[in-house]
Amino acid sequence: MSQQLTEAGGKTRLYVTADLGASMAVTLDEGPSHYLLHVLRAKPGNRVLLFNGRDGEWLAQIGQLSKRGVIATCLEQIRPQSAGPDIWLAFAPIKKTPADYLVQKAAELGVSCLLPVYTRRTIVTRVNLERMAANAAEAAEQSERLTVPQIREAMDLDRLLGAWPKERTLYFCDEGGDARPLAQAARGAPAAILTGPEGGFDPAERETLRALPFVVPVTLGPRILRADTAALAALSVWQSAVGDWG
Amino acid sequence: MSQQLTEAGGKTRLYVTADLGASMAVTLDEGPSHYLLHVLRAKPGNRVLLFNGRDGEWLAQIGQLSKRGVIATCLEQIRPQSAGPDIWLAFAPIKKTPADYLVQKAAELGVSCLLPVYTRRTIVTRVNLERMAANAAEAAEQSERLTVPQIREAMDLDRLLGAWPKERTLYFCDEGGDARPLAQAARGAPAAILTGPEGGFDPAERETLRALPFVVPVTLGPRILRADTAALAALSVWQSAVGDWG
Repeated sequence: MSQQLTEAGGKTRLYVTADLGASMAVTLDEGPSHYLLHVLRAKPGNRVLLFNGRDGEWLAQIGQLSKRGVIATCLEQIRPQSAGPDIWLAFAPIKKTPADYLVQKAAELGVSCLLPVYTRRTIVTRVNLERMAANAAEAAEQSERLTVPQIREAMDLDRLLGAWPKERTLYFCDEGGDARPLAQAARGAPAAILTGPEGGFDPAERETLRALPFVVPVTLGPRILRADTAALAALSVWQSAVGDWG
Repeated sequence: MSQQLTEAGGKTRLYVTADLGASMAVTLDEGPSHYLLHVLRAKPGNRVLLFNGRDGEWLAQIGQLSKRGVIATCLEQIRPQSAGPDIWLAFAPIKKTPADYLVQKAAELGVSCLLPVYTRRTIVTRVNLERMAANAAEAAEQSERLTVPQIREAMDLDRLLGAWPKERTLYFCDEGGDARPLAQAARGAPAAILTGPEGGFDPAERETLRALPFVVPVTLGPRILRADTAALAALSVWQSAVGDWG
């Protein structure tokens, strides 16, 4: 009889921060411990899959369950570690519910790093990095990723561009002008996508961006997309054209 | 001085069901009337853009505002009517909040028709067509479409496939097996995308689908996507490959 815990979406996969390796006993973090104890009502002997973004995916057996944390022992490596494509998403922060959605979807679509960026027309002034990290980890668990997207601290566009790693192409989703379709302009990693706030980039920002050698203005068709739609569409098109969907 | 009503997202565009034409006085439907009166607090003389999916986009001037409806007079055609690509989305219904999101995003991404379809593993048993239509119209207004996606009544997968128009390729988003990447398999319109419920299609459904001459199984990369993410990613990739994003 399988002791594998299952959920609606399939196998129970948990992201942990601890090291994983043969016969290692791992104390799960507070989030996964709570989930196992109170949502799945796990019992000693139940099996789960663990990953930490470094050591691949491990089948593990739950030993002790207590309020101080769940302890699980690694039994067998199921998949070796591998990295997805190196594609960042720099995005102007949006309101709470669409932001949750954006982070989850971007993680499913394989984004490697999320960078909130304040532009002149950005209205949202606070970014909850902890909430973003929790959403990203949950989406990584469910999408069977072996990594969790990195979350960077929010910063102003000027600072982001000033410190930009020059070898990383920045695809700037530009609503106006003569931008090329992303699928045609896309080159392989390292790459990044930049999407603006609901009101778009202002003319000075557009000019600055277009003058930078690592920036490629791109278009996502003739309709006006909401900020979060543009980010998800761009990630899909990039993955499909030059990422790991080919 | 411009009398053009503006919102956070730009110009006020309203979908109406009435005919539009030079000098025609149009009584707006209840939804747009309410929006103009109570949200935008419009006044006589204010100007808005109107479209109905048939007669192009018109600049119109608001005349009378009353509880019985707002009347506006068409001044000038701004854009002639044009149709977007003929791309349908057949999707297993999902819960209310993700369903709202899916309909809005699909409309922004240019879907021409939305078809809710019950599969064996579909858990949601009711579809609110009125709510879908309202979400689709609102997204059409904001995305500057000249059409609003059609909404079809929900039906079982067997019935949908039995009545399928054979010249329309159905791209079946298949999580398992040897499916080709959508960007490579995609051909032009008429086309349709089919996405399953959270639990995926069952083996018998997959077999049925794969045996049909108009069905092309496609993959959206190595990660497991939520149902709504898969639909939006597939629309983006299709539009980018053979739709109107090129």
